[in-house]
Amino acid sequence: MGGLTRDDMLVVLLSCGILLSAARIAGEVARRLNQPAVLGEILAGILLGPSLLGRLSPQVSSYLFPAYGNAALVLQGLSSVGVILFLLVAGLEVDLSTIWRQGKTTAAVSVSGVVAPFALGLVAARWQPAAMGAEPGADPWSFALFFATALSISALPVIARTMMDLDLYRTDFGMLVVAAAVANDLIGWLCFAVLLAMMGVSGHGTPVGLTIAFTLVFAALMLTVGRRLLDRMLPWIQAHTTWPAGVLGLSLSLAMFGAALTEWIGIHAIFGSLLVGVALGDSIHLREQTRATIDRFVSSFFAPLFFASIGLRTDFVANFDPLLALTVLIIACIGKVLGCAGGARLASATPREAWAMGFALNARGAMEIILGLLALQHGLIGERLFVALVIMALATSMLAGPAVQSILGKRRPRPFIDYLASRAFVPRLKAVDRREVIAELSQAMAAALGRPASAIEDSVWNRELTMSTGLEHSLAIPHARLAGLGAPVIGLGLSATGVDFDAYDGEPSRIIFLILTPEDDQGVQVHLLADIARTFKNPDMRAKVLQVMGATELIALIRTERSEEE
Amino acid sequence: MGGLTRDDMLVVLLSCGILLSAARIAGEVARRLNQPAVLGEILAGILLGPSLLGRLSPQVSSYLFPAYGNAALVLQGLSSVGVILFLLVAGLEVDLSTIWRQGKTTAAVSVSGVVAPFALGLVAARWQPAAMGAEPGADPWSFALFFATALSISALPVIARTMMDLDLYRTDFGMLVVAAAVANDLIGWLCFAVLLAMMGVSGHGTPVGLTIAFTLVFAALMLTVGRRLLDRMLPWIQAHTTWPAGVLGLSLSLAMFGAALTEWIGIHAIFGSLLVGVALGDSIHLREQTRATIDRFVSSFFAPLFFASIGLRTDFVANFDPLLALTVLIIACIGKVLGCAGGARLASATPREAWAMGFALNARGAMEIILGLLALQHGLIGERLFVALVIMALATSMLAGPAVQSILGKRRPRPFIDYLASRAFVPRLKAVDRREVIAELSQAMAAALGRPASAIEDSVWNRELTMSTGLEHSLAIPHARLAGLGAPVIGLGLSATGVDFDAYDGEPSRIIFLILTPEDDQGVQVHLLADIARTFKNPDMRAKVLQVMGATELIALIRTERSEEE
Repeated sequence: MGGLTRDDMLVVLLSCGILLSAARIAGEVARRLNQPAVLGEILAGILLGPSLLGRLSPQVSSYLFPAYGNAALVLQGLSSVGVILFLLVAGLEVDLSTIWRQGKTTAAVSVSGVVAPFALGLVAARWQPAAMGAEPGADPWSFALFFATALSISALPVIARTMMDLDLYRTDFGMLVVAAAVANDLIGWLCFAVLLAMMGVSGHGTPVGLTIAFTLVFAALMLTVGRRLLDRMLPWIQAHTTWPAGVLGLSLSLAMFGAALTEWIGIHAIFGSLLVGVALGDSIHLREQTRATIDRFVSSFFAPLFFASIGLRTDFVANFDPLLALTVLIIACIGKVLGCAGGARLASATPREAWAMGFALNARGAMEIILGLLALQHGLIGERLFVALVIMALATSMLAGPAVQSILGKRRPRPFIDYLASRAFVPRLKAVDRREVIAELSQAMAAALGRPASAIEDSVWNRELTMSTGLEHSLAIPHARLAGLGAPVIGLGLSATGVDFDAYDGEPSRIIFLILTPEDDQGVQVHLLADIARTFKNPDMRAKVLQVMGATELIALIRTERSEEE
Repeated sequence: MGGLTRDDMLVVLLSCGILLSAARIAGEVARRLNQPAVLGEILAGILLGPSLLGRLSPQVSSYLFPAYGNAALVLQGLSSVGVILFLLVAGLEVDLSTIWRQGKTTAAVSVSGVVAPFALGLVAARWQPAAMGAEPGADPWSFALFFATALSISALPVIARTMMDLDLYRTDFGMLVVAAAVANDLIGWLCFAVLLAMMGVSGHGTPVGLTIAFTLVFAALMLTVGRRLLDRMLPWIQAHTTWPAGVLGLSLSLAMFGAALTEWIGIHAIFGSLLVGVALGDSIHLREQTRATIDRFVSSFFAPLFFASIGLRTDFVANFDPLLALTVLIIACIGKVLGCAGGARLASATPREAWAMGFALNARGAMEIILGLLALQHGLIGERLFVALVIMALATSMLAGPAVQSILGKRRPRPFIDYLASRAFVPRLKAVDRREVIAELSQAMAAALGRPASAIEDSVWNRELTMSTGLEHSLAIPHARLAGLGAPVIGLGLSATGVDFDAYDGEPSRIIFLILTPEDDQGVQVHLLADIARTFKNPDMRAKVLQVMGATELIALIRTERSEEE
């Protein structure tokens, strides 16, 4: 306990707690607004940093999030370990077979996704350096190279997180985007290593050529020999060490070693843990439990800590130059989107997919900021351009999710619980026959919707008369389509005694859902019925639901039990 | 990225990776030797620290595990966060109802478990300060108070880990020991706060009386209002935030805030996260998945990192004074064991339980070392006494597990897979009838045991003739007792076509175990048969086992799948 005093620890604990909770809350808000959680996490950091809290109360801000000193170092260390473990998780989820299958497209997208923005950035920065934010007296070629590199680098963590948030990660599209981002980033970081070497600050004096050679050799080894070795080791570890601590310890220490190796080579540590993750995740012997444990802990502790800490680093208000920010943003988007989309088209993707890929890979984030900060430290750029780069990084990330969603037009079916109206939950139904139950639930539903109960009751009852809605396992699902409804609404009543809904197993119904869908529901009704039936197939779930007294408890139960099964 | 350079990060990553893997490996070795894993983890740190690696290669040692500088601070921060999260896990597992039920015993054990060693230490240090390792010129009363406190403090993390390792944690005995350790430690840390105040180094100048008052108020609030509040909040969080990131984020940030609060109060940060864990773990709404995710990640990442880092802190060879170490050890054991056992007897525990409790609570560890280090920094003690205290901490911890096990005489039944002989696994049986299968498996077993096959075959076949051993679900378990066998041995043969073992569901047997137990097996055979039948009830498991080609893969499959179900 030599270095850290109790006061240092106090600051570390407080700031971890505040960053973590603020990031989680903002992340939830972002998700509500159909944005990836990662954006909320970064914004939480900006609000807590010099841009807002630093203005409102400089004392609180410099106490909680000091820029220098022991506590600052520990926080920085924690967030660095955080991003390394986050990339391990991203790697675990990569499906190599998809990438091999689509190798041509990956190559085309990643090469043209780097070349186009790089060329555009180089030309713009050489031709109009001042407009691109060059400080007076900066070396024109170094600045131009930096600017070009900054535009062409992607943000693997942000892209991976965005794909996960949109539930696209494990799809072919998601894998292709991530593969392209990996290749793209590797090229980008190699450019950066060249740049650093030119500036004379390369890590450990390793020649650039060696850095490139080492990187390629390490990546190739991990994806061939390393992958097979891990596949052999996993059963042995599982058989001969404590489960699951043995496998988890192995995975986490390998991530550290991989990160150390790539840091030593001269590219960034995150590439090492990513490659370790890819190699591990490819083994059929890796159990889902291991993957899920790492994923859950990292996504809820290390990742928010890292993403929130980005916003702490500078004052985004004082250094904001709107014209510069807009210029950088536009040039960045044009180069990246057109480059990636063009590459994808060449590799014969459909136009729709090509555009979606362009916008997905357009997202920059942490990488951009780390690169910018290094350039700032070495006097290559000023704070104005740094802030413009961060804003560009955030804006492109913010654009990525909605753009991909609207281009692909893909709306994933939501679980029925998302549509449950809290006020239409009747924990103890008074009604004892079918007609009365429907009336009672329609009343509750009417209160929730602010519509007359009679209209609801009539349509549901008319539907019920055509065919009864009692299912097996004491479940009944009366339902109807209702004109003027914007989205499905679901009510639920529980009956202690059970009500005869003419179920085909002859049992009285005790868990009775009332489902109202819009007139043009595009198959949502069928999906909801199937989802409810699937959820309540488990007798345990039925028993637990019948005990529930409040809507919150009900929603919590269904959300958490569903995923326990998966 | 202001403070940490790439070189700093390289050191952090390398040392994390090395500490983690060395700690996990040594932990596994310790478990094989029937010691708690935590001992191996601490020893791994000692080997990597100045005591061994520092001697063999001072350069490697000071590069990898620097005592000063940025990387050292980050490592220290990581291990501090580690122990805080470890105490959160320990808290989650505490079962309050058991503790209330046994409140009288808890109180008696913890009070007399502090008073006795404190009194003994005080007398010894006042009477013979030199023999207790006092440096010339030390203030006699301060030294005596420190020595007394050092003897009376326990090591909650080590005790909790030992109980978990021995599978006693969730038993009444384990809960009582942990509750007594918590109370004991709280008293001990309050003594320590008094001592620090006397030495004029109290945290933030808070008066000692206030520290004590705050501690009691905080503990009381967490266990009443805080506990009920969390119980209300959990369903809401589960219903309205992303699952499981919402609940995990809440738990982890609360642990940070709790730790910050107790650090601010002037006792140690770990008490805060422990209390948060207790309050959270008490809610029936906390899902097993949440608990397991935190437990698994912390136990395989943060805990080994923390425990291994203890050994890095000093040179255990140069500062080793055998006489002093022995004296301290003996006085510490007498005071603590007699004190706790006496208290337990007063509260009418059985003599056996009382002794077991004494030895369990005798374990010191991290707390001792932190206390010692602080005293060292303030010039209250010298390095010799510090090393003697660490050795006492390790020796008492090492003693705890075996002592408790042998006093309670409790041997927990081991899973059948522990007895499977790799060489007696026949993935593709050639035999097509019952007699041949038994002969073939007996051959394999004979090779594994180095005994003649005929004797094995005869006893198994004779047993088989009295009643066939075919069970349902294509399982058969021929077995016999064998003279001269030290422990059970199990063989396994898989038959692609199936063999008629006269199973009561009429199906041919495809998964055929051969079980040999010692003549006096004390019911082990029955337990093994039941364990096998339970494991293979799951059709998924049967299908997977039939695909297996090697013994390692088989053992890995059974070990990991078993716990997925739990």
